Amino acid sequence: MKNSFFSRFTPKEPKFFPLLRQLAEILSDASDTLVESMGHDSPSDRADYYKRIKDFERNGDKLTHTIFDELGTTFITPFDREDIHDLASSIDDVIDGINSCAKRIHIYNPRPISDSGKELALLIQQEAECIIKAMDELETFRKKPAALRGYCAKLHDIENHADDLYELFIKKLFEEEKDCIEIIKIKEIMYELEKTTDAAEHVGKILRNFIVKYA
Amino acid sequence: MKNSFFSRFTPKEPKFFPLLRQLAEILSDASDTLVESMGHDSPSDRADYYKRIKDFERNGDKLTHTIFDELGTTFITPFDREDIHDLASSIDDVIDGINSCAKRIHIYNPRPISDSGKELALLIQQEAECIIKAMDELETFRKKPAALRGYCAKLHDIENHADDLYELFIKKLFEEEKDCIEIIKIKEIMYELEKTTDAAEHVGKILRNFIVKYA
Amino acid sequence: MKNSFFSRFTPKEPKFFPLLRQLAEILSDASDTLVESMGHDSPSDRADYYKRIKDFERNGDKLTHTIFDELGTTFITPFDREDIHDLASSIDDVIDGINSCAKRIHIYNPRPISDSGKELALLIQQEAECIIKAMDELETFRKKPAALRGYCAKLHDIENHADDLYELFIKKLFEEEKDCIEIIKIKEIMYELEKTTDAAEHVGKILRNFIVKYA
Repeated sequence: MKNSFFSRFTPKEPKFFPLLRQLAEILSDASDTLVESMGHDSPSDRADYYKRIKDFERNGDKLTHTIFDELGTTFITPFDREDIHDLASSIDDVIDGINSCAKRIHIYNPRPISDSGKELALLIQQEAECIIKAMDELETFRKKPAALRGYCAKLHDIENHADDLYELFIKKLFEEEKDCIEIIKIKEIMYELEKTTDAAEHVGKILRNFIVKYA
Repeated sequence: MKNSFFSRFTPKEPKFFPLLRQLAEILSDASDTLVESMGHDSPSDRADYYKRIKDFERNGDKLTHTIFDELGTTFITPFDREDIHDLASSIDDVIDGINSCAKRIHIYNPRPISDSGKELALLIQQEAECIIKAMDELETFRKKPAALRGYCAKLHDIENHADDLYELFIKKLFEEEKDCIEIIKIKEIMYELEKTTDAAEHVGKILRNFIVKYA
Repeated sequence: MKNSFFSRFTPKEPKFFPLLRQLAEILSDASDTLVESMGHDSPSDRADYYKRIKDFERNGDKLTHTIFDELGTTFITPFDREDIHDLASSIDDVIDGINSCAKRIHIYNPRPISDSGKELALLIQQEAECIIKAMDELETFRKKPAALRGYCAKLHDIENHADDLYELFIKKLFEEEKDCIEIIKIKEIMYELEKTTDAAEHVGKILRNFIVKYA
């Protein structure tokens, strides 16, 4: 039974740290599945992998909304509401990006993914691991920000590497590939992969603001 | 004559409910015009329809800025300023999306729009109707949120349907169409239509937050 | 040595006006370089110009983060924190857009840029000049908003002109060009140029809100 008076004013145990870690775990699982999917090139395998990743995307969406709802009803939050909101949103955006990558591979059904495409997926996976570890710092970084700062730097470096890899690949694609439809397919998939590494770096930028503001 | 002292401190009659409804009506008119446009395939008809939709887009833009200006000068608002801001913005984004669809049809001038394209336009039209009805709940949902909750659910369902429709169509397009330039045109237009159904669902997400926060 | 007590409560000299002007100057330099780059069509020249513009982009990024950090630590700010945040972000977005244009020219390496492409770059350059002048009004527009209002109107007009130019060009491109791969390259570059003029107009929209709120 809801205690309408006290439930509004008694500080609840803030569940934000485990919820954010759980969201990062969904991201990590999705990125693992994306990496795995790239070794399977039949249309039916691609459809299956997309279905699996879409499930992660939906779970991520639900969990993000749980976090938003908690923010709307919890009396005391460990950081400013909008900061927790932005952090959860930004992690969810990476999951959405992974979903878009798998969707494009499924609906465009290009030739086997290139080594550069696989490498971008591996970079997304590394970023996801980085983000999990960063979530484990949220309770302690106010006093010891060095580890969190390190993860932000790593996210930045990975994204820079992804940029270079993407640019080199697309340059070569337009020099060498003559099949226009294949160019469209590959270009769109590689673009989405690269954009997803950007989205992961954006999580790092938000965490960097946490350090400036709270540490 | 402006009463510079009292005009700042006397609560004004908040005009937000009718203004938001009016914005939703512009959206609805734009979506009707988009649906109608798809039965007219000559370049000059497409140019005309784009011109008409662009007028809606401009009116939507003006009205959105009127709402923003009211927010900046009204002493008492029925919801938090940034919530009204986000709601108006999100409705305007759907109108912008419809404008982009019509623009692409005009400048790419593809073959007659496919049945799937027409169906996506009909889904946008349904979403627009949903959003109008949702605006009519804004004054009362704090006490009776069921109807508004229903519209949010419907926006979500329509968007899911649009997703499936889009994916199936693009998959088939890349399997069957061999004309590369036509693929580019159709793909870009279908992408924009689908993105517009997303934008309409985003209005539903914002309204869902209204329920959590205010009901 | 950090004075932990007083450093938090003593108003610092707000450095926001010169910092924002400096950001606008980076934007202006980047736009000058983009205009210049379009007269140089060899792959190596394009690579060089991209490299130069990427340096501006990185400097813009660093300066934007300096502004964010200042916002987090300065006690008194001349406008609401989030307004300064949005203004700096929006200027940085234009620099990012210019960087994306140069990147696409480098990695797609299309035929020499068309007159319409060059004209779009010139419009971006004009917008950048407008934004510099607007920054010079930030200290005084509360009492004399006319000049700032004029720059906002000019940004709006330039963007409208860019819209028309873009639409006309793309329409003609799809009517006349038969080389599918070249269409992809040109379409993507022109799209990014047009989007960058939008980003510059968005700075104008934010400044318009400053006038409503503070003048």
